[in-house]
Amino acid sequence: MINFSSENYDHVHPSIMQAMLEANKGFSPSYGKDPDTAKAIEFLKQEFGENIQVHFTFNGTGANNFALGCLAQKHHSIFCSDVAHCYVDEFTAPEAFMGCRLYPVESERGKISVGSLSKHVKRSGDLHHPQPGVVSITQPTEHGTVYSITELQAIKAFCKTHNLLLHIDGARFFNAAVSLGISLRELSTEIGIDALTLGGTKIGMMFGEAVIFFKPEQSNPFWFMHKRSMQLASKNRFIAIQFTKLFENNLWMEIANHTNKLANYFEEKVKSIDGVKVVYPVQSNVVFLNLPKWLYLNLRNHANFYYWDEQKEYARLVFSFSNTKQEVIEFVELLAFSINLHS
Amino acid sequence: MINFSSENYDHVHPSIMQAMLEANKGFSPSYGKDPDTAKAIEFLKQEFGENIQVHFTFNGTGANNFALGCLAQKHHSIFCSDVAHCYVDEFTAPEAFMGCRLYPVESERGKISVGSLSKHVKRSGDLHHPQPGVVSITQPTEHGTVYSITELQAIKAFCKTHNLLLHIDGARFFNAAVSLGISLRELSTEIGIDALTLGGTKIGMMFGEAVIFFKPEQSNPFWFMHKRSMQLASKNRFIAIQFTKLFENNLWMEIANHTNKLANYFEEKVKSIDGVKVVYPVQSNVVFLNLPKWLYLNLRNHANFYYWDEQKEYARLVFSFSNTKQEVIEFVELLAFSINLHS
Amino acid sequence: MINFSSENYDHVHPSIMQAMLEANKGFSPSYGKDPDTAKAIEFLKQEFGENIQVHFTFNGTGANNFALGCLAQKHHSIFCSDVAHCYVDEFTAPEAFMGCRLYPVESERGKISVGSLSKHVKRSGDLHHPQPGVVSITQPTEHGTVYSITELQAIKAFCKTHNLLLHIDGARFFNAAVSLGISLRELSTEIGIDALTLGGTKIGMMFGEAVIFFKPEQSNPFWFMHKRSMQLASKNRFIAIQFTKLFENNLWMEIANHTNKLANYFEEKVKSIDGVKVVYPVQSNVVFLNLPKWLYLNLRNHANFYYWDEQKEYARLVFSFSNTKQEVIEFVELLAFSINLHS
Amino acid sequence: MINFSSENYDHVHPSIMQAMLEANKGFSPSYGKDPDTAKAIEFLKQEFGENIQVHFTFNGTGANNFALGCLAQKHHSIFCSDVAHCYVDEFTAPEAFMGCRLYPVESERGKISVGSLSKHVKRSGDLHHPQPGVVSITQPTEHGTVYSITELQAIKAFCKTHNLLLHIDGARFFNAAVSLGISLRELSTEIGIDALTLGGTKIGMMFGEAVIFFKPEQSNPFWFMHKRSMQLASKNRFIAIQFTKLFENNLWMEIANHTNKLANYFEEKVKSIDGVKVVYPVQSNVVFLNLPKWLYLNLRNHANFYYWDEQKEYARLVFSFSNTKQEVIEFVELLAFSINLHS
Repeated sequence: MINFSSENYDHVHPSIMQAMLEANKGFSPSYGKDPDTAKAIEFLKQEFGENIQVHFTFNGTGANNFALGCLAQKHHSIFCSDVAHCYVDEFTAPEAFMGCRLYPVESERGKISVGSLSKHVKRSGDLHHPQPGVVSITQPTEHGTVYSITELQAIKAFCKTHNLLLHIDGARFFNAAVSLGISLRELSTEIGIDALTLGGTKIGMMFGEAVIFFKPEQSNPFWFMHKRSMQLASKNRFIAIQFTKLFENNLWMEIANHTNKLANYFEEKVKSIDGVKVVYPVQSNVVFLNLPKWLYLNLRNHANFYYWDEQKEYARLVFSFSNTKQEVIEFVELLAFSINLHS
Repeated sequence: MINFSSENYDHVHPSIMQAMLEANKGFSPSYGKDPDTAKAIEFLKQEFGENIQVHFTFNGTGANNFALGCLAQKHHSIFCSDVAHCYVDEFTAPEAFMGCRLYPVESERGKISVGSLSKHVKRSGDLHHPQPGVVSITQPTEHGTVYSITELQAIKAFCKTHNLLLHIDGARFFNAAVSLGISLRELSTEIGIDALTLGGTKIGMMFGEAVIFFKPEQSNPFWFMHKRSMQLASKNRFIAIQFTKLFENNLWMEIANHTNKLANYFEEKVKSIDGVKVVYPVQSNVVFLNLPKWLYLNLRNHANFYYWDEQKEYARLVFSFSNTKQEVIEFVELLAFSINLHS
Repeated sequence: MINFSSENYDHVHPSIMQAMLEANKGFSPSYGKDPDTAKAIEFLKQEFGENIQVHFTFNGTGANNFALGCLAQKHHSIFCSDVAHCYVDEFTAPEAFMGCRLYPVESERGKISVGSLSKHVKRSGDLHHPQPGVVSITQPTEHGTVYSITELQAIKAFCKTHNLLLHIDGARFFNAAVSLGISLRELSTEIGIDALTLGGTKIGMMFGEAVIFFKPEQSNPFWFMHKRSMQLASKNRFIAIQFTKLFENNLWMEIANHTNKLANYFEEKVKSIDGVKVVYPVQSNVVFLNLPKWLYLNLRNHANFYYWDEQKEYARLVFSFSNTKQEVIEFVELLAFSINLHS
Repeated sequence: MINFSSENYDHVHPSIMQAMLEANKGFSPSYGKDPDTAKAIEFLKQEFGENIQVHFTFNGTGANNFALGCLAQKHHSIFCSDVAHCYVDEFTAPEAFMGCRLYPVESERGKISVGSLSKHVKRSGDLHHPQPGVVSITQPTEHGTVYSITELQAIKAFCKTHNLLLHIDGARFFNAAVSLGISLRELSTEIGIDALTLGGTKIGMMFGEAVIFFKPEQSNPFWFMHKRSMQLASKNRFIAIQFTKLFENNLWMEIANHTNKLANYFEEKVKSIDGVKVVYPVQSNVVFLNLPKWLYLNLRNHANFYYWDEQKEYARLVFSFSNTKQEVIEFVELLAFSINLHS
């Protein structure tokens, strides 16, 4: 059965698994003081610049809450999109761990803008209102769209003006870089962001994300927040080895290129079919489709994917490393067949 | 170099790594709704009884805080030993995640007793004092000792009398069961405990612990606390596969037996050496040694291990799955040699 | 200078101050175990019914967070209006004290409806999303409007269907009751709400609010949450005496009647003036006025009041117990004079 | 009936109540922006020095948690005595509001020392252990003893060496100053402490404490923590007026002098009685008495006071502003009479 549910459903990329297997020997310091971790950080510094501070975490929820909980003080508010993972899919972890307010900002196609932010970033200095502290955006967004460099620069400028720190939730960050055809550094360090959640799981790892802070001169207490977030792995080398593999020979680029292309190919193919419509610009490996409920019910016996929004009749298709062009073809044929049968 | 630092320094047990490799294919539901997770739970039910509720977590700190944060309400206090991992080695995660008080109870050889508990469990019904809610013990303790069944029953009876829930931090739980020569069930379910942190990492897994609740009829909201604790793995099957491997052919028993025996063998060997002394009864795979500082400084060029307490001059040796009898022999010879040289 | 800023700017109602003075003698048990507190609770039971549990707090923020923090568990979300005091004016106290999510619901004239609630109360049973737990409404709303009994019954029915608890922030609750011409009991107990913040400060007290729980059979642990909320007064009798005075001879009704009437009188008078417009239905002692900025700048030398929304050009006038009809007349004359001068 | 239970049982000092009555008129800005608040701060600056930042709170629990929650970051631990109010009598408010660890330090006669602190302030820089951040001492202690200037200087020196901030819980601070015969400034500012909880309620106020920060250049975000702590009074002038009255004509000194003297007088009188014994040095207005249980049972029909420790058979007597020398005489006579009758 075809599976376009999520990268989380997919297994571990064989090269990564192989790397873990090969490195699995002997003793090595725990909690990230081992040479494998040092090596992975070296790779990250090559990509993001020398002046970064890296912490590895188990999962994305942990990474986001650790990163945001470091940037935001107890009297701060964090502004994120109203469809942000940290706002709608991380339970009450933000309240538990960070103890500060998340304010949802209206989004369009998953993106927030300086315009929508402006309505919410207010009452600075007001003793009764959470003080604007951090902006968190998702890149690519939960809707698969990608902020352009211009959009990012505008948000960064807004943050600077209003004295806000800027965080990117990059659960699928590699796909954004490939989509824009630029380096990871151009998409983060050079924008001037303060922290990045760099997702490993969705690109093909077994588990593990990296939280990168870009102003390490301010980040000293963050070392202590790592354990507090319950995200400090004892055998951290097994997260590090996976990241190292991703960067050796640019494996991340190969995978993101593959999955982005599947999304583009899907979009191209589906255009010709009446009755379904791609909802948001396809800019990464995630596609939202306007799919009537009856059609979904027909398809789900042949393919796994999320029916994202019952009211709007939106389905979400995610392309993972082990998905193939052939699967896209089959799925679109199934779609066409079902529609023809119905009409 | 010999390494008796901690199981966290050791690699993944080859059989477990092999099992992960073999199972690494295709798509499978995320967040624990997959057949591998179901299978691991089946194994756990065979060991602990049908009436349990299982949640997998990434690490021990996450497991303890998730378990205790479920058992304790916001107005409760939790009583643990003054050397408990959750009190001295989990940073301020308890305050962040649980929002209730940890009260340290005086311990002897790592154990708390009904006597020491009695001094702290007080002021029930007093509006000004955290209300006694949960007792958490570590089995085996942080000092390597093991609570006997009689001791556990006494603590359980105390808990019942005072309306307290009982949690076991079992980071090395398998070693305790092997040490006492009883089943996992006899050491948990049959004692009448409410929750268990069952450690996977220290017995040879790459990562992953299991939190087991024994009164699932009261545990419904705990499902929701899992994500809140940031410990819900997206590709959970890779935790599950490891646990399954541990239970197939009783691999856990084989490993715990091996590491306990190394500890016993070490104790036996070291007895004959003047100038060092085993501090606590050796009942698991952890040994504390009274080791003069100068001796430690000599040894550490040949062996890695923690000098646990500078003031008391205590060293801690932990035996992991890949340690060998030969290493123990070598270490003890080194010890004898250094002492002879010195005298 | 006329002052329509807020009841918080006003002094203590002389009868209440006199009652405090007269009762100020001797020793009496602390923390609410005194006869004055018992007497106040007796009065509250006469109004709200025998089956209530009462806790006194210092202020409204404390009362709301205590009440909501009791009703909501750590895995819950609370739904309130997007202009609710607890969402926009209580800093990050909710995150600190309750540790659960506040979701803002679109409001019209300060009110939320079953329609707007429906869009947000979702994903029940979803392990990744805060679980719908509590609805909190403000009565009268922050915009001075009052929920009708029919509206309240509809919201209560919605709560029942979705298994949600219902809280009312009644900082100006007495004004709502007088506005609707019904008893306090009809406006709370008989609706079937679970908790009420009954405001004392704004009706003329020096400090003090009452949190009333209506299902005391479920409220046992709430006793312990009181101290946790840092809102348990040591000399509680001085809060209690004030509430007793409010209920003796229905002082609350007299005051609320007076201040509501001032608002109505103001609305009536201002109707005839071109260039300003009352924005929301006047249903309590709070009036929002569409007031051009230049007009505000002219007036503020003669009268104190909040220019609530710079963008919309809304001013807020609040009538407190010591405001008079004569002040309303003067203010409206000032308004008319300024406009005439300008045109 | 004689009442030596606690100052919390006493009413409001008549001069303070009279001051509130006289000031009770008209409108005045809310939330501390009023002239009465400014005046009280002026008085505090005269006592403590110009360079302080003052926040008023409702009660002592609120004051302590607000002060400590400002000084301590999320990754810090706070060291207080094992009998400290914030450790044993403020429920789980510290965990709720501050989110960091309280470590209890062994005390003698209510005091902690550099010696006892030294055992606990450790593992600085260790990623697994809460980082030493703040020391909180109570002056006078919960046992009525008073830290000498020399003791305070030693603790301050220790704090400086270990980079710790220093807080004093001064619920009865005025009594300590009078006891030592020094100024408030000498007992705080000149020691070099970082924050002080200055108690108003116990010296005769209706409610209200002051939190004073002594390094306001570091205290900017603390303004925002005030509302977060739910301790910002809307009609703050009524707290301020009480403090002003305390400082006008040194009323605080008169009261503290009176109550300290009652304690001394009691000690002197009771010395001659066989069968009871004063337990701790009498240095403020609190006396602990070794009082056999049967004697307590006899006395409690004639006098209210706390039987503090059932096991040790300790009673606590607190002398409040409205207690008299005559009451002390009567109480001691009762004591003598009961003992004679018994023997």
